[in-house]
Amino acid sequence: MRTLDDLETPAVLVDTTVLERNVSRMAEWARTAGVRLRPHAKTHKTAQIARLQVAAGAVGLSVAKTGEAEAFAAAGFTDLFVAYPVVGADKARRLLALQDEARLAVGVDSVEGALSLAAVFAEAGRTLDVVLKIDTGLHRVGVLPEAAPETARRIADLRGLRLVGIFTHAGHAYAGETPAEVARTARAEGGQMAEVAERLRGLGLSMDVVSVGSTPTAREGMTVAGITECRPGNYVFHDATQVSLGTCALEDCALRILATVVSVPAPDRAVLDAGSKTVSSDPLRPRPGGHGFVLGTRSRLEKLSEEHGVVRVEEGDRFRVGDRVFVLPNHACVVANLHDRLYAVRGDEVLEEWPVIARGRVQ
Amino acid sequence: MRTLDDLETPAVLVDTTVLERNVSRMAEWARTAGVRLRPHAKTHKTAQIARLQVAAGAVGLSVAKTGEAEAFAAAGFTDLFVAYPVVGADKARRLLALQDEARLAVGVDSVEGALSLAAVFAEAGRTLDVVLKIDTGLHRVGVLPEAAPETARRIADLRGLRLVGIFTHAGHAYAGETPAEVARTARAEGGQMAEVAERLRGLGLSMDVVSVGSTPTAREGMTVAGITECRPGNYVFHDATQVSLGTCALEDCALRILATVVSVPAPDRAVLDAGSKTVSSDPLRPRPGGHGFVLGTRSRLEKLSEEHGVVRVEEGDRFRVGDRVFVLPNHACVVANLHDRLYAVRGDEVLEEWPVIARGRVQ
Repeated sequence: MRTLDDLETPAVLVDTTVLERNVSRMAEWARTAGVRLRPHAKTHKTAQIARLQVAAGAVGLSVAKTGEAEAFAAAGFTDLFVAYPVVGADKARRLLALQDEARLAVGVDSVEGALSLAAVFAEAGRTLDVVLKIDTGLHRVGVLPEAAPETARRIADLRGLRLVGIFTHAGHAYAGETPAEVARTARAEGGQMAEVAERLRGLGLSMDVVSVGSTPTAREGMTVAGITECRPGNYVFHDATQVSLGTCALEDCALRILATVVSVPAPDRAVLDAGSKTVSSDPLRPRPGGHGFVLGTRSRLEKLSEEHGVVRVEEGDRFRVGDRVFVLPNHACVVANLHDRLYAVRGDEVLEEWPVIARGRVQ
Repeated sequence: MRTLDDLETPAVLVDTTVLERNVSRMAEWARTAGVRLRPHAKTHKTAQIARLQVAAGAVGLSVAKTGEAEAFAAAGFTDLFVAYPVVGADKARRLLALQDEARLAVGVDSVEGALSLAAVFAEAGRTLDVVLKIDTGLHRVGVLPEAAPETARRIADLRGLRLVGIFTHAGHAYAGETPAEVARTARAEGGQMAEVAERLRGLGLSMDVVSVGSTPTAREGMTVAGITECRPGNYVFHDATQVSLGTCALEDCALRILATVVSVPAPDRAVLDAGSKTVSSDPLRPRPGGHGFVLGTRSRLEKLSEEHGVVRVEEGDRFRVGDRVFVLPNHACVVANLHDRLYAVRGDEVLEEWPVIARGRVQ
């Protein structure tokens, strides 16, 4: 039996018991709410976890980039939504080729962007399903609800595309100071989406997909009348940010980093072999608070260099050179992307190595 | 001829003209100062750039982790220094195997850590060169100058190890508000190191290596009497942080990211297909100031999600969906680590793809 003692550090561990519980729970919520679950695979980028999600009832996967869609199609997944405003003829040609392998849809948020896809598909005599991104408050990409009818109408008119619905991502929920505030954001997101969908249906547009996303807003958002699909990603792992937001408890976190104490240069400072190239430099949300929790202690990663995780040692905690510790990172999605493999574990046992098949597929 | 127009985005470009100039200039400074140049390869992690450095006169490479040493040894580099406090029997066994391929030295900063290496080498009847890390003000790892004699003496006594010198990294120079302040840090670092080396020689210890590092402090630090080696890394590329520190001019930056504008949802907001998984979430130093400069404009990346780079569009700048732009990242070292390949370019021509052979080698 291979155990944690056999692993070199730093190593990214996934507790399969917690993972499976997280996957089932979200699937159950979606079933109860009567919405299709299309989890965002950017979080884990691994075929094994995506298979668990589909086995639990997911209708397909969401991905962030065309390259991620290619990686999951190659692994046998046949229903993929690129939840991103894809732009350009080069990407369109890759999507055209990918249509032979999977049922595809992609995001759009502008007529110009949609045109760049439409041109390629129309010329090939083919049709691509597109979903219009709505900005429900994050103010990143997407059209505002009031502008949706005009943009939707113009995109629906383009030969080579079929507009099948709308989607949004309430990423601003991550600024929520309390779980109640996060829940309010979720209901507001769902309400806006249902309203926009009704207006677009009034214009004669088909709205098969009315899709909301994000782990903190998923449970509440999917219960709003009119929502047909939900795209949470992070829930498979959770992380220090989800704990801080109140989305989950510490024991719901499936991803941890096994690290070694390589230096204890001062009584209040210990240094781990896990720096920003292992845990990423993403800040804790909703409020800054270091770069990761050292589990079983009151101490946190206070500063990071690329290969150094500097722990501020709190009173009562003890770190010795050579000790192995577990770190809960701020943001699990970016951690998976930094590593070639995740170690699937149960207790101390290492069950399997899962290759991160869509790592680095930013194109 | 393959040109930039043939590349998908986002793509990491290296301007070979600027790269070669940066490599020659640092080599010339080292020659003039009479110190050995051992550049830190963690910045680029590519064999092609390391070969340029060696061809220009570098005596060997510095790397950050045992896995990086293995990657560069496999690529034919035979003089490697793991500039990191390596700890543990598993790493020691890998270093033992690696000694068959390359002249090796590794960092140590504690007796406990050194013991974990010594045990393996002594048992094999072999000797590993070790270099003691000194904390000259960064307060990350390393022993303070006043503690160096005691730690050095105890490590030098361990069978299986040979203490060959001391090294430091003045990373605190990155907080320097002015070039003059950075230069003062460099001189202070060099002065402390020369003093520590003299005290250790007084104890009968050999001090062949008295090594300083960091790109902003390199030129000044290597001129301090008593310094024998310098380990800058970032200088091959430079980045927005080096420009902000005054270490270099904008035209000395060799690494840029080619990105596409995928959305312009508001007059003051444009979104690029390059987010934290492409440019990293490392902050600008010495003062925060966004996540990267959009070259040829006054605009910067203001916010990042994983695949979205949100540009705050400044007055007079114009971004249209489908436009391609160049981004200068805050921190080039972490960018190389996020990608499988760098595109070597000259003007608009794409000359070669360079695999990032030591990417993700955190163990």
